[in-house]
Amino acid sequence: MGSVILGMTMSLDGFINDPGGSVARLYPDFDQLRETEQLREAIRNTGAVVMGRHAYGMGDPDEYADNYEFQAPIFVLTHEPPQQHPRENDRLTFTFVTDGIESAVAQAKAAAGDRDVTIIGGASTFQQCLRAGLADELQIDIMPVLLGGGLRLFEHLGTEPIELEKIGGAENPTPVRTALRFRIKQRNK
Amino acid sequence: MGSVILGMTMSLDGFINDPGGSVARLYPDFDQLRETEQLREAIRNTGAVVMGRHAYGMGDPDEYADNYEFQAPIFVLTHEPPQQHPRENDRLTFTFVTDGIESAVAQAKAAAGDRDVTIIGGASTFQQCLRAGLADELQIDIMPVLLGGGLRLFEHLGTEPIELEKIGGAENPTPVRTALRFRIKQRNK
Repeated sequence: MGSVILGMTMSLDGFINDPGGSVARLYPDFDQLRETEQLREAIRNTGAVVMGRHAYGMGDPDEYADNYEFQAPIFVLTHEPPQQHPRENDRLTFTFVTDGIESAVAQAKAAAGDRDVTIIGGASTFQQCLRAGLADELQIDIMPVLLGGGLRLFEHLGTEPIELEKIGGAENPTPVRTALRFRIKQRNK
Repeated sequence: MGSVILGMTMSLDGFINDPGGSVARLYPDFDQLRETEQLREAIRNTGAVVMGRHAYGMGDPDEYADNYEFQAPIFVLTHEPPQQHPRENDRLTFTFVTDGIESAVAQAKAAAGDRDVTIIGGASTFQQCLRAGLADELQIDIMPVLLGGGLRLFEHLGTEPIELEKIGGAENPTPVRTALRFRIKQRNK
């Protein structure tokens, strides 16, 4: 059985984009990042992907089948599926899930089989997963910048602490990043 | 000439205490921490300390002379000096600074000579230093917990980004901590 992995890149002050909505300062190493062993390993281990509607819409939906790094079933959490179903291929399919994050993660786990489910933000999907205790592992890359504003990653989690367990030996994928890896000790499990 | 060092311990979600004001979950390694080589080195390198009024009041002022790890001149940023001057010794003296953070840091630098100025929070003093561009180095220890609320460390910084430069090779003082070290590239310098 694989793990459900929440992964995000944030500034040291906890933002996943800047006050203007740009992520440029968080990905100065964008080109380098796509060539890393860490990404290749994530791709090998990922059996299904969950993403929020906003994250889905950041790319051209019809381009995923050709260009998306994770060629795996994708579950998009949304209130309203798009009228035209995006292009798929043998490995990459789209399922639009309208009945909540628990359902999206459950469907993704079934599709992933023994492999991992990778949750690709945005912030709201990320927070819903944490609140509902659906994730096993937290992978946070910290970038060397204070953005001072923007979209906060860790918010709306409730005020009961969530204990984490540091996973040692995480290698930084590129020199500017600091890779933090934690096992999530669930509140209610 | 030494550096001005801002150091704090925070939860992964950026809080320096929990919603009830407790720091207990951020210092499960408190006893271990006082014996680390990192603290011994910080003590050797620190020529003066700046602290906010609240941080100062967290201990018994008359106990600093006997028990405080940094036996050095201490500059307390406050609106109102205490009516009774706390006990001092040959190395540890108190100066209550009422004319702002720039003045407190300037006086601490003069007292520190070739050694470092260590800024001991709280959050407000920390934020004032960052906003005013007074610090050279940021030392953040991240603890494996999401507190969900409490006092945020990185807030009120303005919305101009502050670029940092990762300082490599930081050793974690205790296994649960992740020590992040950055040089601060000033906005206005």
